[in-house]
Amino acid sequence: MSSSDKKHRANLQSHLFALTLDRQARPALHLQLAQALRGLILSGTATPGARLPASRTLAAELSISRMTVQTAFDQLLAEGYLTARRGAGTFVASDLPDLSGPAATPDPGPKLPAPPPFQPFRPGVPDMAAFPHRLWSRLLERAWARPDPALLGEGDPLGWPPLRAAIAAHLQAWRGIACHPRQVVVTSGAVEAFELVLDSCVPPAAGVLIEDPGYDPLRRVLTRTGRRPVPCRIDGDGLDISTAPDGLAAAIVTPSRHYPTGATLPLARRLALLDWANRTGAPVIEDDYDGEFRYRGQPLPALASLDRTGQVFYLGSFSKLLSPGLRLGYLVVPGRHLPALAAQMAARGSSASLTPQPALAAFMQDGAFASHLRRMRRLYGRRQQHLLAILRRAPDLLQVSEDPGGMHLTCPLGPALVGRVQDTEIAQAGTDHGLHLRALSAYSVLPDPPQGLVLGFAAYDEAALTAAATRLLTILHALR
Amino acid sequence: MSSSDKKHRANLQSHLFALTLDRQARPALHLQLAQALRGLILSGTATPGARLPASRTLAAELSISRMTVQTAFDQLLAEGYLTARRGAGTFVASDLPDLSGPAATPDPGPKLPAPPPFQPFRPGVPDMAAFPHRLWSRLLERAWARPDPALLGEGDPLGWPPLRAAIAAHLQAWRGIACHPRQVVVTSGAVEAFELVLDSCVPPAAGVLIEDPGYDPLRRVLTRTGRRPVPCRIDGDGLDISTAPDGLAAAIVTPSRHYPTGATLPLARRLALLDWANRTGAPVIEDDYDGEFRYRGQPLPALASLDRTGQVFYLGSFSKLLSPGLRLGYLVVPGRHLPALAAQMAARGSSASLTPQPALAAFMQDGAFASHLRRMRRLYGRRQQHLLAILRRAPDLLQVSEDPGGMHLTCPLGPALVGRVQDTEIAQAGTDHGLHLRALSAYSVLPDPPQGLVLGFAAYDEAALTAAATRLLTILHALR
Repeated sequence: MSSSDKKHRANLQSHLFALTLDRQARPALHLQLAQALRGLILSGTATPGARLPASRTLAAELSISRMTVQTAFDQLLAEGYLTARRGAGTFVASDLPDLSGPAATPDPGPKLPAPPPFQPFRPGVPDMAAFPHRLWSRLLERAWARPDPALLGEGDPLGWPPLRAAIAAHLQAWRGIACHPRQVVVTSGAVEAFELVLDSCVPPAAGVLIEDPGYDPLRRVLTRTGRRPVPCRIDGDGLDISTAPDGLAAAIVTPSRHYPTGATLPLARRLALLDWANRTGAPVIEDDYDGEFRYRGQPLPALASLDRTGQVFYLGSFSKLLSPGLRLGYLVVPGRHLPALAAQMAARGSSASLTPQPALAAFMQDGAFASHLRRMRRLYGRRQQHLLAILRRAPDLLQVSEDPGGMHLTCPLGPALVGRVQDTEIAQAGTDHGLHLRALSAYSVLPDPPQGLVLGFAAYDEAALTAAATRLLTILHALR
Repeated sequence: MSSSDKKHRANLQSHLFALTLDRQARPALHLQLAQALRGLILSGTATPGARLPASRTLAAELSISRMTVQTAFDQLLAEGYLTARRGAGTFVASDLPDLSGPAATPDPGPKLPAPPPFQPFRPGVPDMAAFPHRLWSRLLERAWARPDPALLGEGDPLGWPPLRAAIAAHLQAWRGIACHPRQVVVTSGAVEAFELVLDSCVPPAAGVLIEDPGYDPLRRVLTRTGRRPVPCRIDGDGLDISTAPDGLAAAIVTPSRHYPTGATLPLARRLALLDWANRTGAPVIEDDYDGEFRYRGQPLPALASLDRTGQVFYLGSFSKLLSPGLRLGYLVVPGRHLPALAAQMAARGSSASLTPQPALAAFMQDGAFASHLRRMRRLYGRRQQHLLAILRRAPDLLQVSEDPGGMHLTCPLGPALVGRVQDTEIAQAGTDHGLHLRALSAYSVLPDPPQGLVLGFAAYDEAALTAAATRLLTILHALR
């Protein structure tokens, strides 16, 4: 028997064994079975020549008498749908017309290219080898072995309440944000959070300020939802709101560390931004994607912590702090915008899985989350210093400056490369040599973007960073 | 010490203990600490009068000398930020100006109304008391204690490959759909699936056919993404595509069981629908939300199983089969549409959490999923019969007909109620009496919608159904 025959037979069996016959209903059981089997043949599910299970087996599986099965088979033998071969069993007739249409198996489409391999310096990825998998798996097991009944229904679309409370406590301690747990909305990530804010307080077709360079998926969310992205070139201190055009309906910013350059928005610009929001009524969305990872100096309090009048939506994510596969993030909603946003969420339904939420709440409540962040902060801080030390050897190739935080370094091209090679060409050369390099210019849509490389370091140990950075300098040296 | 003081102090402590001082960097450690503490006071995080931790404790937490801490404190005592009370400790000065702006605590917004209580006859909810929680929690624990490295990165945005393979096998056995695992895309639910299909092959502003009555979130997805919903009134057999206007860019249908009336689309109409898709090039989205729950007769193969030319996107969900909190669904994509859809998914990023995916794959692979479905099918089938038997006692109040499957019954109003009371008034009366009733007319946007009640039964045992149905008949009797 060929493997394809085996597969057809297993498929036919699972169909037959899954049948539900109704003892109370008409028609009689053997007629119900015959009709079902006829349907399987006509639909092409039971392929010509396929062998049926023995009547004894089928009878046992369906909890009906063997006589009932045999009567159904006899009917279909008489109709010509089945044939019997003595000693071999009962088969779907092989001389049936081809009922399966032009293509017996529908076109499965092309094999898609595999996702790019995981290589340095892919940015924004935490070191999962340092993740406390055992503890996490135990917390998952504990949360779901005898789950809280409130976890079993559709639940609050704004998220599992103990998780929202744990996030509020975390934000108070780490980011200086005083918020009520009910202002915390659990999302499946930044994209859903952006959509919720846009749909609850930014009119269709409105212009929304985004930073340039900036986070590309954001520009796509705006376009996809019918808003107009208005890119605004940042300088070494981040966004200067006084350079923004009039008539904007919202601004999306990364004040803690501009993405991807790492610039920290100074206090004066923060206050100007809040003043702008107050004057124009346009909300500010603060994307604080890795504000917890600050290695030197005092972490600046979040923009949201300076907001006294409810202008700032604050966005955080667990993808970079814990694991990208969690697909969990959150949004802190100014009180006055909460009813509209909650209505939006109720209407669309949450897309954040409840499965990780009680485990994450426990992880945060018992302090494991804070210790993990502190441990990762030390680890990533050492790795950043390590990478900096290597790159500093070639100041003509890359401009390297101390960055107080983050999970990547953004390095403008050095004098030996500027004007000679595009950063996108360097990124391509990296791919050819087993490095994941991102060109800084690829984060821009405005003309004459800054040229440089965005180098993630958090997920790679010192040995991997040494090897990768050495290879990078060799590549850059050759392109000079 | 009041509880608010305690909270402020704990907050200040957690800030101070989370500080990272840089031994290598300038300025000196005591200056870094003084600067950080000054920042906490200026930002309002350290409130006037709050007591600081003892210098010995802080020194131990930060792994610095006690002298360093005392030098920093002395500096701030001199600057007036701190005051010391002999024998009591060091405090944030209480005569600082109010730096916290007009509102010390930002407005947390109104308390939102609680989600409606879980009561019969809320539809579409599985019986979670019958869910194998122990097995599920062990599968979660096993998948994540020593996770497959492929689960730790960003992963394939189309879903965990073993889960996609398990879904393809399930669809072959239960729904007669032959598809390749690569055509299966894991989503966070029907809403994300609709969006992906729309964004990959339906132009903005295009008209999309939806059934009326129908699934309301769907209409909202269309409006939100800038498409035009074109509602089409169904009859007792579901959608008749020959009644649809010209120029539609897609059609979204529920052929297995029309939602919410339960009508099964006959074969002739299915073929006509496929023919329409072939002629017009408009894709058909088949929403097979509970096709596995068929209690009597042969389950009709899915529309997608008849599709030979790649017109039909097939949508399934685990919310009703397993648990709504999983937030997992899937989409089977015709091969020719796969590259565009995969590009869409890559651009927006997946919102389906990886946390439940390996556990669900194991649950499906070892047959536990199929046994669970079979067990639920028997359980829900009995409950449906039980509810039917009670409702049949009052044919003047509700028209009840045998329904071969599903998790709810849709009952048109009987002759004693038609014209006397609106179904929406009945639903309101239900709420007042502790019943969750849905008015059939609320599923329509077209004028003169059918009047009736949508009664979920799957999640309620026989005793609960008896009590609720009796109460319902009493309410209806009073409204007659």
